[in-house]
Formats: sequence, C-alpha cells, structure tokens
Amino acid sequence: MSRKTVPKEKQKQRRGGRAERRAQRAEAAKPTPLPYIRRQISTYSLLDEESLTQIEANAETILQETGMEFRDDPEVLEILKAAGADVQGERVRFEPGMCRSIIQATSPSQFIQHARNPERSVTIGGNNTLFCPSFGPPFVHDLDRGRRYATLEDFENFTRLHHMLPAVHHSGGVVCEPVDIDVSLRHLHMTAAHLRLNDKPFMGAVTAPERSEDTVAMAKIVFGKSFVEENCCIYSVSNVNAPLVLDATMLGALKVYARHNQAVVVSPFILAGAMSPVTVAGTLAQLFAEVLAGLCLIQLIRPGAPGVFGTFASPISLQTGAPTFGTPEGMQIQFSAAALARRLGVPFHSVGALTASKVPDAQAAYESAMQLQAAVLAGVNFIIHATGCLEGLLTMGYEKTVMDADRCAALQAFAGGVDLSLEAQAMSAVREVGPGAHYLGCEHTQRNFETAFFRSTMADNKTYEQWQIDGAEWEHERANRIWKHMLADYEAPPLDAALGEELDDFMARRSREIQASEGT
Amino acid sequence: MSRKTVPKEKQKQRRGGRAERRAQRAEAAKPTPLPYIRRQISTYSLLDEESLTQIEANAETILQETGMEFRDDPEVLEILKAAGADVQGERVRFEPGMCRSIIQATSPSQFIQHARNPERSVTIGGNNTLFCPSFGPPFVHDLDRGRRYATLEDFENFTRLHHMLPAVHHSGGVVCEPVDIDVSLRHLHMTAAHLRLNDKPFMGAVTAPERSEDTVAMAKIVFGKSFVEENCCIYSVSNVNAPLVLDATMLGALKVYARHNQAVVVSPFILAGAMSPVTVAGTLAQLFAEVLAGLCLIQLIRPGAPGVFGTFASPISLQTGAPTFGTPEGMQIQFSAAALARRLGVPFHSVGALTASKVPDAQAAYESAMQLQAAVLAGVNFIIHATGCLEGLLTMGYEKTVMDADRCAALQAFAGGVDLSLEAQAMSAVREVGPGAHYLGCEHTQRNFETAFFRSTMADNKTYEQWQIDGAEWEHERANRIWKHMLADYEAPPLDAALGEELDDFMARRSREIQASEGT
Repeated sequence: MSRKTVPKEKQKQRRGGRAERRAQRAEAAKPTPLPYIRRQISTYSLLDEESLTQIEANAETILQETGMEFRDDPEVLEILKAAGADVQGERVRFEPGMCRSIIQATSPSQFIQHARNPERSVTIGGNNTLFCPSFGPPFVHDLDRGRRYATLEDFENFTRLHHMLPAVHHSGGVVCEPVDIDVSLRHLHMTAAHLRLNDKPFMGAVTAPERSEDTVAMAKIVFGKSFVEENCCIYSVSNVNAPLVLDATMLGALKVYARHNQAVVVSPFILAGAMSPVTVAGTLAQLFAEVLAGLCLIQLIRPGAPGVFGTFASPISLQTGAPTFGTPEGMQIQFSAAALARRLGVPFHSVGALTASKVPDAQAAYESAMQLQAAVLAGVNFIIHATGCLEGLLTMGYEKTVMDADRCAALQAFAGGVDLSLEAQAMSAVREVGPGAHYLGCEHTQRNFETAFFRSTMADNKTYEQWQIDGAEWEHERANRIWKHMLADYEAPPLDAALGEELDDFMARRSREIQASEGT
Repeated sequence: MSRKTVPKEKQKQRRGGRAERRAQRAEAAKPTPLPYIRRQISTYSLLDEESLTQIEANAETILQETGMEFRDDPEVLEILKAAGADVQGERVRFEPGMCRSIIQATSPSQFIQHARNPERSVTIGGNNTLFCPSFGPPFVHDLDRGRRYATLEDFENFTRLHHMLPAVHHSGGVVCEPVDIDVSLRHLHMTAAHLRLNDKPFMGAVTAPERSEDTVAMAKIVFGKSFVEENCCIYSVSNVNAPLVLDATMLGALKVYARHNQAVVVSPFILAGAMSPVTVAGTLAQLFAEVLAGLCLIQLIRPGAPGVFGTFASPISLQTGAPTFGTPEGMQIQFSAAALARRLGVPFHSVGALTASKVPDAQAAYESAMQLQAAVLAGVNFIIHATGCLEGLLTMGYEKTVMDADRCAALQAFAGGVDLSLEAQAMSAVREVGPGAHYLGCEHTQRNFETAFFRSTMADNKTYEQWQIDGAEWEHERANRIWKHMLADYEAPPLDAALGEELDDFMARRSREIQASEGT
C-alpha cells in the first residue's frame, strides 16, 4: 500500500493526534532504564591466535619459574600448597596449566550481581558490558570550588548523580574518599550511602577483612541473609601489587568475599615500565600470570565463587615517571587482556575514561574518549572508571562525571548495533523520496524519527550565532549547570523504613565497637 | 648469558658513553618522518557477511529502480548510455552488478599519490592509512582573536603547520577558505601554497572544471608534465549531492581529474535523516548506490584512473535539524562503509576529528576522539578532517589542529600494533626483577626505554602541584603556545627557484586571463 492510498482515517489513527504525538515524544525523550548493555556488536581482535598463545605460554613460564608472592597470610599458603603448588616461604610456583585448569573447572563465565532494585541487577560477563564510576580519588573537583579533599557530602552527591545517570549502571565503590570521616568508619558510611541513595549494584570495602565483613553484614540487612549467601550482591576488587605480589590486605578481603560467594576481581595495578616490563607483550604476560594465580586462589577458597579478570595498566612517562592515560599502549594492553579473559572463560573488568588532566578540558576528553571507546570495542564486561576520573585517579570531577556519562550513553547506543529490520532498511523511503529531494517529511521518517539517532545531553549542536546568544558556554560550563540541576532534582529511591533503621542500628553498634577497639 | 656475567667492557660498548646516549636520546625524541601508516592491526567488523550482502543488494535495487540523476552534463549521460545504462532524461538506472563489474575490472585497489618530496609520497588503499587536515571551513578560530573569516594568511599558516606536524600526512585541500581572495582566483593561491609551503601530497580544486585544469597545470610545473600524466599527483573529492544526484560542477571536476589519471573520491555528503533515510541501514544502501555509480563513471572515462570510495555521513538532530558529530550512528556508518569498500576492492576515504563544538573544549575532544579512533579501527585509508575541525566544518581551529594532531600521533602508534619479538616479550626482565621489585633500572628497561611508549606533545602528566606552579594551563592554552612556536620555527621546504618562478608566471598569466574573462 503506497502512501497515497492510505485512507485519511487510518493515517490519523496511525500517527495519533497532536497531543498524543506530544506525549509519545515526551516518552521517547525520557531516559530508558537500561540496567546494563547487552552487546549487539562484535569485539575487536588486536592480537592473533599465535600471539595470544605466546603470551599465555609466557605467563605460565612466569608462574612456574618466578612464581608469585602471597605475603603475610599463612592460611593462603596452606591452601595453595594443598592444591599442589610449590610453596617456598611466601614464594609460590605453579606448574603450567595448574591455575588455568582449576579456574576453568568451577569459575563462572558470567553471573548476576543483584541490585536492591531488581530492575537494576546486572549480568557481568559474556556478551554484556556495564559502566561504573571511578574508584578511589581522595580529591574532588568542580568549577566553583576547584580541587579539594573529598568529604562524605561529596561521596553522597556522586552517589546521587550515579543513581540518576541512565548510562551509569553501577553505584561503584569508593567513588571518592570521604576524608572527613575517620578511616576506620568510612566503609560503613560509604556502604550506607550506596544502599540508601542509589538502587544500582555496588562495590564492597577491601581495606581490611573486618570491613569486608561489615559490608556483607549491611548487604544482608537490605537483601536478606540467605539471599546474600546464595547470590552475588557485592562486587569487590583485589589489586595485585605488581609485580607478582598479593599482600595480606588484599588477600584478607578476597577471602571474605569469596567465602560469602561474592564477586572478586583480581586486578593487577600496573604502571607499565615501573611495575612491569617496558613493553606491551611483557606487561601482558606478567599481568596474566598474576590474574591466573589470583583467580585460582578464589576457586580453591570457594569453588564456583564469581572471580573476574581485571587489569589496570597504564604506561609511565619514561621522562618523568608520571603515569599517562589514553595511550596507545594502554589500549593495546586492554584489547589483548580482554581476549585473554575470553579465552580463559571468565568475565573481564578494565578501565574506562582515565585521564591525567587536572581539569575537564580537551585533554581529559581526548584521553577519556579513546580509552572508554576502546573498552567498549574490546568487550570489557565491567568498565570501571567510566565516569568522573581526573588527575590519574586522584580526583573525582563533578563536571567530568556528567560529561563522561554522556559519552557512555553514546557508546551504549553504539553497542546496540545496527538495526537491519526491513523497516530500518528503509527501501520504501528511498523509493518515495528519490534523487534531489529530502527525507524530512516522508512517511518512513514520520514513523521513525521519535526513536532515531542518539541524543546527547551535553553536546551543543546549535549555530554559532545561537550559541553566542545563549552564553557561549564551553562544555564544562554546561556540565556545571547540569550536575547542579540533577542534584536539585534528586529523589532517593524508596527503602523500607524498617531496613533503614536496621542499617542505622548496625552502623551505630559497629561504630561504637570500632572506636572502642581503637581506644584500647 | 645473565646480566652478571657480561664483562664491564662489553656493557660499556653496548650502552655507549654519556654523550652518545644523549645523542641517541635526541635522535629518539626527533619526530620520525612517517609518510603514512602501514597498519599492523586488523580492522573492526561491525556488520556480518549477511548484513553487508543485504546492504549491497539494496544499493543495487536503488540503482535499478530509482537510479541516479547526472545533472546538466550531456556528455556524461552519453558515456553512461554507451556503457549500457538506462538513461531517461537525466535519470540513469543501472542493472544490478553493472557498476560493480565495471569498477572491479579496472579500478585500482591501491595507488601512490606522489608528493613533491618523494619521501612524503603516500600509498592510498590496502592496509594503509593517512591523516589529512580538515577541508572547506570559511572561518578560523584561535584563542586570541576568536572566530573570524579565514584569509590567505590563515590558509598559509595552516599549510605551514601541516608541513611540520609529523602525524599529518597530507597537505589537504581547502584547509580554510581564503575569503580575502577573489573566488575565481582562490584555487591558484591555495594550490601555490600547497606546492611551496608544504612538501606533502595535496588536493586539487573541484569548484569548476577550469580550476581543476589550473591545478593540473600547476602540478605539471612542479612534478613535470609527463610525470603527472603517468602518476597520481593530485587527489580530489567529488561530493554526491545526496540523495542520488551528481551535478555539473562535481562532474566537471571529476572528468578533468580522471582524464588526467588523477585520483577522484566519490563521496556522498549526507546529513542522515535529511539527505538519506533516518536509519543507518537505509543510509548505507543509498550511499553505496551513489558511490557505485560515481566510481563506475570514473572507470568509463578513463579505465584504471584511481577512484576512491568516500563517505561523509552525520546524523542531523531530529529536534533542531542541526548536524551532529562523534555520534554512534556516524561511527556505525563509517565502520560499515569501510567494509563495503573493502569488499568492492577500492580505497576508502572518510572522516576523522569532526565536532559541532565552536571552541577547543571537551565536547570538541570527545566527539573528535571517538570518530577519529573509529576511523583508524575501521581501516579508513584516507582520513579527511583528521585535524582542525570545529563547528561542523564551518571553522578551522589553530589550537584544535595541534590538539588533534597529537591524537593522530597516538593512533599512529596504536596502528603500529604490538611488538611480539623476543626482546619485546621481555621474559628476561621478569626473571631479573621478580616479585615486589621495580623495573626502572633493569637491563631490559635500560635497553628499551628510549623507544618505549608513545610520547604525547600535548598531554600534561605532571603532578597537580607542578601543574599549578607552571601556570595551571588547560590543554587549549598549551595548544595556543605550541602553534605559535611552530609557526615561529617554520622553515619552508626547498623548491627549485626556476620552478618557483614558473609558478609565479603561471599564476600571473591565469589571474589576468580570469579577470579579463570576468570583466567581459
């Protein structure tokens, strides 16, 4: 049926009245709640089969010849010895293939991390990707107040923003260090903020085993005790102290979470050239060895507990020793490590919008965009530092957060792939319009324009003249307005009052206990 | 032989003295002249075989059912008719497979575009990629003077910068419109600037057939008459007026260059949603039809003349009609069109660092980085608009140019692939260093640190404190200093004085002729 033969009545029915169209437009403009990205695109292969096999062989050689150190944790040494590793003091060597076979026997290829709002639960691994905020900065930055030490208020503000940003799929962990709170109590306040102010999944404390236990206890209040023991509700990162060391702090947290069946990422923290060889291939072999040893340990502690292959690897400047970001080598390591994780059969966790810039300028954006886009094309399952990072993880930026989140949304649309339905092929449109005409008013455009094309919340696409009239704002200036509006509009996700009180009681009791133990 | 057994004498020999090391460092720090990128990485596949086949079939259907219009050029209509196309008035329809078989019979899969400095000649097509400056902006922007109409001085300044920037491989064409020069004479001044101030390859005028002839004549002065007839010395772009129209201006330039055996890109200029369907799949089918028709015509005019598959496709904002850049759909179209070009067997030309931003801010950088990186991963052979673009091609930026060029250099390093030599595998380093130590002083690092890791000329990786002491500059402020220093340091590449005079004489004669003909 060609356009001309559609009866007027039917046209009206199909298109609806003006008010209805306005309502549809409003609906289409609303951010759709997408709990994570189900990828409809392939992953980019940087290294070929032969190269990956070589890297794997080198990692096995490192584990066999040099081995790893597991420091100040006799229990872990016992576990590894019992499993057949060669333990000499704290140095542990593994026969080639040992770690791999232990991991592949029981480590899940993907798993669900539950959010307290079930609609926000995420699947980690397989063909899925999610964006998570940055982790660990002691400072925050905004245009009004500049760079300053972070406070609990900042932590809560970022947690609110992450709740609202549709392409941020995770509440994260230490989104900034609340330095106004005593170190020994911070984990209680951070976990409470994640559980109260945001209904997306979150990350648990790793700075001491008892803090990890507190995180589990608080999760049990909100999720229910048996639910937590049977399901993954907490995601945590154990950093390997590259080269080739896992220390008691990281091992302590790893053991707690693994025993509670919660997710643990084994993520070597590498400033390449200082903490690994000064080459991509050497860095890859070392980090793969480190990850194999760590993931193996998780399966020895609790077979089936979700373990994740992580990497944080940025080259240092060989002139100054400073870490550098958005670099060719950083992307090469990430693409290659993602392939190693797929071959191993475990989820992969790596970095997103990293930058060494101190401010939300072009450097911040160039570096962030390149690594973030590489992460998506690499098929990283859990993209940490996807939003907010400034100054090489030392600073969390307010403007940077909403700017990065807009790029996350663009990449989420990209990862949705190309629609090749008959409607999307649009042959009727080409037939209708023909040479030299335009498509704006054609039937096909009318049917599809509400949902067509990604809409940036940050980009200014106006004419120069209109942009000038509107104040000639640079992107960081628009971002400054936007995060303030968002915080003003924030509404906390509902939490059962009884659970809230139980959280309060737990925090009060644990705070007293911790302070008492510190007083002694 | 382990490190400890290397005799002192030999160590000294290997490392050289202090002065020698300093010389080596200076050598390593010098930008290596890389005339283009020989890719050591694979291309990213977005669409699968089945999807690409469907797009190709749709393009053939468009050519058969709807056809293309070739306007105001009876000669072209005759050529197409003689080749078997169905010509009705200016509408030309092609049987499925006709264009493809004509192209595949004689169109080269790659070719050399010669530069007047043979060391700067580039290979276009195959596994090669090059970065070319932006094209066409009537305005320029810098931090000191803001946005203003471009002049010949600006054109010459940009041509000098492009000569100096190591990761810009081409002098480009209309790097900005010298609006202080009469329209009818601009092409003479622009071509002269490319030939005098820059020794990289350049693009020819396409605004009228006689201007294309002037470009060929000027190239013949510098390259030699027979050399130009036998080799590609000029690269030019014929934009299809999407949808499905080639007009007399573009056809005129296309005929001149093809007859002289010079390279012609057939590049539909598409603001998707207005000039093509509002979907990626529909846009791809239309643009492929347009390119097939244009490349077929080139081969009918001169079999074997280098034809290039081009695309410029950015979605419009469906709210305001404004073009948008760095978008998911723009990248999807580029990845897919690159695959279509490879299947056809011709070189592919597409866009790089596009942005709608008016200033060198974070928006400019995010949008530019995403599309530029996509272009490299897509395997685009000729990346136009790789540097300088602001305001959706309306403005050429001074700061933006040096900022983008730094990212081109990063991507050039990325495209060099991962070194998997025994030395790069660095197993000796891991054995030497072991757990918990650092690599900074080890033998392997000593041997490799001069050449390891990409060095950005724009990124600030300093500490916050040092950055503050040094003036707390944002990237665009550093860029402002850098382009001024570069222009101050510029030295013109040598040109034989006799050739220079011949160019002067030609320009003087043609200027008189053109002005006389305009006077009548």
